Amino acid sequence: MSNLHTNSTAESFFPPHRTLMGPGPSDISPRVLQALSRPTIGHLDPLFINMMDEVKQLLKYAFQTENEFTIAVSAPGSAGMETCFVNLIEPGEKVIVCRNGVFGERMRENVVRCGGEAILVDDEWGKPVSVDKVEQALSEHPDAVAVAFVHAETSTGALTDAEAISQVARRSNALTIVDAVTSLGGVPLLVDEWQLDAVYSGSQKCLSCVPGLSPVTFSQKAVEKMKARQSPVQSWFLDQSLVLGYWSGEGKRSYHHTAPVNSLYALHESLVILRNEGLENAWERHQSAHRELKAGLESLGLSFVVEEGSRLPQLNAVYFPEGIDEAAVRTRLLEEYNLEIGAGLGALAGKAWRIGLMGYGARKENVALCLKALADVLK
Amino acid sequence: MSNLHTNSTAESFFPPHRTLMGPGPSDISPRVLQALSRPTIGHLDPLFINMMDEVKQLLKYAFQTENEFTIAVSAPGSAGMETCFVNLIEPGEKVIVCRNGVFGERMRENVVRCGGEAILVDDEWGKPVSVDKVEQALSEHPDAVAVAFVHAETSTGALTDAEAISQVARRSNALTIVDAVTSLGGVPLLVDEWQLDAVYSGSQKCLSCVPGLSPVTFSQKAVEKMKARQSPVQSWFLDQSLVLGYWSGEGKRSYHHTAPVNSLYALHESLVILRNEGLENAWERHQSAHRELKAGLESLGLSFVVEEGSRLPQLNAVYFPEGIDEAAVRTRLLEEYNLEIGAGLGALAGKAWRIGLMGYGARKENVALCLKALADVLK
Repeated sequence: MSNLHTNSTAESFFPPHRTLMGPGPSDISPRVLQALSRPTIGHLDPLFINMMDEVKQLLKYAFQTENEFTIAVSAPGSAGMETCFVNLIEPGEKVIVCRNGVFGERMRENVVRCGGEAILVDDEWGKPVSVDKVEQALSEHPDAVAVAFVHAETSTGALTDAEAISQVARRSNALTIVDAVTSLGGVPLLVDEWQLDAVYSGSQKCLSCVPGLSPVTFSQKAVEKMKARQSPVQSWFLDQSLVLGYWSGEGKRSYHHTAPVNSLYALHESLVILRNEGLENAWERHQSAHRELKAGLESLGLSFVVEEGSRLPQLNAVYFPEGIDEAAVRTRLLEEYNLEIGAGLGALAGKAWRIGLMGYGARKENVALCLKALADVLK
Repeated sequence: MSNLHTNSTAESFFPPHRTLMGPGPSDISPRVLQALSRPTIGHLDPLFINMMDEVKQLLKYAFQTENEFTIAVSAPGSAGMETCFVNLIEPGEKVIVCRNGVFGERMRENVVRCGGEAILVDDEWGKPVSVDKVEQALSEHPDAVAVAFVHAETSTGALTDAEAISQVARRSNALTIVDAVTSLGGVPLLVDEWQLDAVYSGSQKCLSCVPGLSPVTFSQKAVEKMKARQSPVQSWFLDQSLVLGYWSGEGKRSYHHTAPVNSLYALHESLVILRNEGLENAWERHQSAHRELKAGLESLGLSFVVEEGSRLPQLNAVYFPEGIDEAAVRTRLLEEYNLEIGAGLGALAGKAWRIGLMGYGARKENVALCLKALADVLK
């Protein structure tokens, strides 16, 4: 009990108010932070269960799906990714994994850890996934059970044509496993119309909720694959056959784990905001903020990593001028302007910045601050 | 896009103010809720990284350990449990699993899903784990690599002698994997003095933080076992060799996942409160509230499930009077008094209530409310 009796006093933490324009967490509406700190109630309280049902309904709207199996995993987006793989992939199964950034590689890791075999389709960082290459891979591996790809690559800002990949996957009777962490709420994502099978996202990107939750949705075809499993899901925590009993509206809930009550208040509020704004308006707001940011960045002489046709409005990766101390620039932005922009990740580390315009952050005042602060610091 | 254009308006959720005296989440201090809603900053912000270091230090105090590997898993307690098993147990390894309630059975599930073999030591619900039986199991299975048990069974309110079990495990050179979800901060838990190897807890019990985080600590011996693994950890999200790079204070942090920033503010604040109160004072406060509650419950004719010597102060399981509609009682407490107490779980479902006095909830006003409300409703 060496340190039981020490007299040092611990102090509360008071963060500054930053403007968050990195790759996430994104700027959060005061309404969401207020919802977050409402009084905690029990996770089996009838009022809370009713709110969980509303979260499901609101998530269905955000995902544009009628999928009954639409919930929020009680952990960050990377656990949402793992949820899809551990429930859908059994040992020995082949999965086409598309890599055009950090998160495709993470998908490969997941497949391998499930005992699956990853067939890799590689595209250059900053390019979208090539539909032709996916089709080619499927023709060489007609036994692949799924095609996994990232809709909006947070590491590069590239948007992939999810509908087209879903089409070729379906022709081969393969499921689609889609990373929509950065796309949900920021650009069109039409789960039902595009017939996507397993889609996961994160709370802290274009939903502008606090980090820590991962919305997921599974099509009926995906649910059937789960039900037909020969081997148990390797994760107890992420086993959706158990989780669904907890989120199910029918009859008595079964206890699985203690839901992150307050974080779900925040997610609920962020989804209410999105619902009332309307998805199409939210998409247009992201585009509009992006157009302004783009014009300003280009007039500062910064060029985009991703070509215009597949450029995400909410994640702007730009090469910084050669020879500058890029970390020093970011530090000055943070310390002098309380403004966070993101460093490059993986292949773009030391080459590009990532400027986020996500959710509540996609506003004119954020664009103006970012452009003026960058202009001042780069002077 | 069937529901893209519907005009229904979604509404914010305003929970009532409940007094939480179930098995968790527990009553939360207003200070912790305030900390929770402070402005979100980036998870790689130097100020946030510094706060994570403070969380590690404060957790070391709470666990009474010098273990360097002491962090909070970014998910609920059941993910903390899984973290211990997936990192420490390899396929084919034997684990002694002690079951005297719900959570021992969940440990068995975890062992099996890791490909391990669970050797069961069963004790009656409401009894502590029998040290003699563990010793016996170890003598029959000297190749067991670990003994897993629950320190404070949330489903029954029984306290197990963790120090004694650790002693017999060490004689057999087996690691201990300890569920301290309900014990941390409520009753003595001396990780270093008792030489426990892998201990996990939850944020929403005696720490009185919001649910969603799981403090864990690993001894040097446990870290060595992880490092010597022959097979990769089956979970990417819970692979501690990756997570540690994110939590490590030395040099540059490696990105793993986006930390639940605001929940960690809340955990920090709850640990600051505990640090400044002092562990011994917190333990005594739990005992004192328990003594008052016990006297009152017994005068209402309710009897305890667990014998006095192994009874937890923070989780009071009591048999309710035969013939009453117990669910109706709990509903009246909730609706008329905004008071939540817990139903029985597993073998105690339909037989007992669980009344929590955890963390901020271990106060005279909570005891008084509970006793008077119960007396009124049982009249």
